[in-house]
Amino acid sequence: MKLLLIGATGSPYFEHCRREMLDFLRSSKTVGLLSAANPFDEQAYFVAMKEHLTRNGLSTAKELIHICWNSNWRPSLNKIDALVVPGGNTFVLLKRLYQSGLIEALRYKIREGLPYIGSSAGANVTGPNILTTNDWNVAGVSHFEALALVPFNINPHYVERSASDAPNSETRSQRIREYHQFWNNPVVGIEETAVLSVVGATAPIVSKGRVKLFTKDGRQRSFGSGEELVWDDWTSSFEGSFEGEKEIVP
Amino acid sequence: MKLLLIGATGSPYFEHCRREMLDFLRSSKTVGLLSAANPFDEQAYFVAMKEHLTRNGLSTAKELIHICWNSNWRPSLNKIDALVVPGGNTFVLLKRLYQSGLIEALRYKIREGLPYIGSSAGANVTGPNILTTNDWNVAGVSHFEALALVPFNINPHYVERSASDAPNSETRSQRIREYHQFWNNPVVGIEETAVLSVVGATAPIVSKGRVKLFTKDGRQRSFGSGEELVWDDWTSSFEGSFEGEKEIVP
Repeated sequence: MKLLLIGATGSPYFEHCRREMLDFLRSSKTVGLLSAANPFDEQAYFVAMKEHLTRNGLSTAKELIHICWNSNWRPSLNKIDALVVPGGNTFVLLKRLYQSGLIEALRYKIREGLPYIGSSAGANVTGPNILTTNDWNVAGVSHFEALALVPFNINPHYVERSASDAPNSETRSQRIREYHQFWNNPVVGIEETAVLSVVGATAPIVSKGRVKLFTKDGRQRSFGSGEELVWDDWTSSFEGSFEGEKEIVP
Repeated sequence: MKLLLIGATGSPYFEHCRREMLDFLRSSKTVGLLSAANPFDEQAYFVAMKEHLTRNGLSTAKELIHICWNSNWRPSLNKIDALVVPGGNTFVLLKRLYQSGLIEALRYKIREGLPYIGSSAGANVTGPNILTTNDWNVAGVSHFEALALVPFNINPHYVERSASDAPNSETRSQRIREYHQFWNNPVVGIEETAVLSVVGATAPIVSKGRVKLFTKDGRQRSFGSGEELVWDDWTSSFEGSFEGEKEIVP
């Protein structure tokens, strides 16, 4: 399994992680782009994204094709040798993965080796559930289990409290503490410019941006460039600080 | 129906809206406090809140009693002549309102005239649904319909984009635009220091803080001290700019 998890899609798209992305896609010829997180005009989004990626160094030898959740996506999915899922609304994305049947197909394909790049919402859905997204559940989704490719939940666009936030609203770490009142699995906050390169059960940070690991016991640990998150599997400890559980129970 | 809707509980509790709160509770003798939005230690929270409110001017002639969602709340609810519901996690609050049966009891009591003060999560639940909260759904709640005492959804702790937010995450107005891709009712952003005094279908802003009305057609309008939101009823227009619908459809 080979994932590139990115804290934000960024503007211009993927500019902040251009090198990591091109490196990750080095041996891919046909790259799929799933736009299902976009609650507005997916076709226009794909066109703009394709233009940006091509201009910003995606080899012209590569084909970028649109994976549309609401049309016949199977032939396209079978054609690609890497998949990119950018941000948008995580609840909208998850709803469409279930509606289309893509949830099972993606889980299978990615576990079998399809390289996957997910930014923001696209990173969120690789965790066990999406309940640590910053997005609002505008689609009224009532199921939250996601791809469960990694044993930790993700909070993208991670920031510490900043002076000009609404001063009396919760910080990310307070929200994560609330999450751990109900759930056992760790949460990884990914700063906007941070990129995690997951291979199996190891995830080196391949960017200047940092990530922060929060475990149920209240501990926090930051990881920067050159460091790596390491876990054994679902049932074993996470960097020694997390007593993992296979079942996620509310 | 008489509601006081406040953008934040604040620190110290209710200090920023002390005068409006005391004024609202002027003729109440027995005030209930429902702590169900607090995902941690509700008893400790009640004790701290009671101490603050008493020190900050809540008359000693008034009795402040704890309404506990997970014990026999009916006798307490029948005793009070005003209810305060402070912030915390909106999903946790709504889950407990359903679990306990308080959702129906509160809807009835408040419609019959029980004065209600709601801040943050406590304000959110007075709308048709809670899908415009800033909170995370840490409790994995799958039903979102709330008290529907007012025809608009609420976004508390409202702020415009600030320079030190994570620069590539959505602004509140972008999130509200996403909401309006799926839902028809208006959304009211309430700044932390803003207080809306709802009487029937009129809500004057009784604070320095401002509120902002967002309608499905994309229009936004700010209201400050001395101005008021006015709507006729569920089926009629909202300040002329909103074509209301009785049914909220996803």
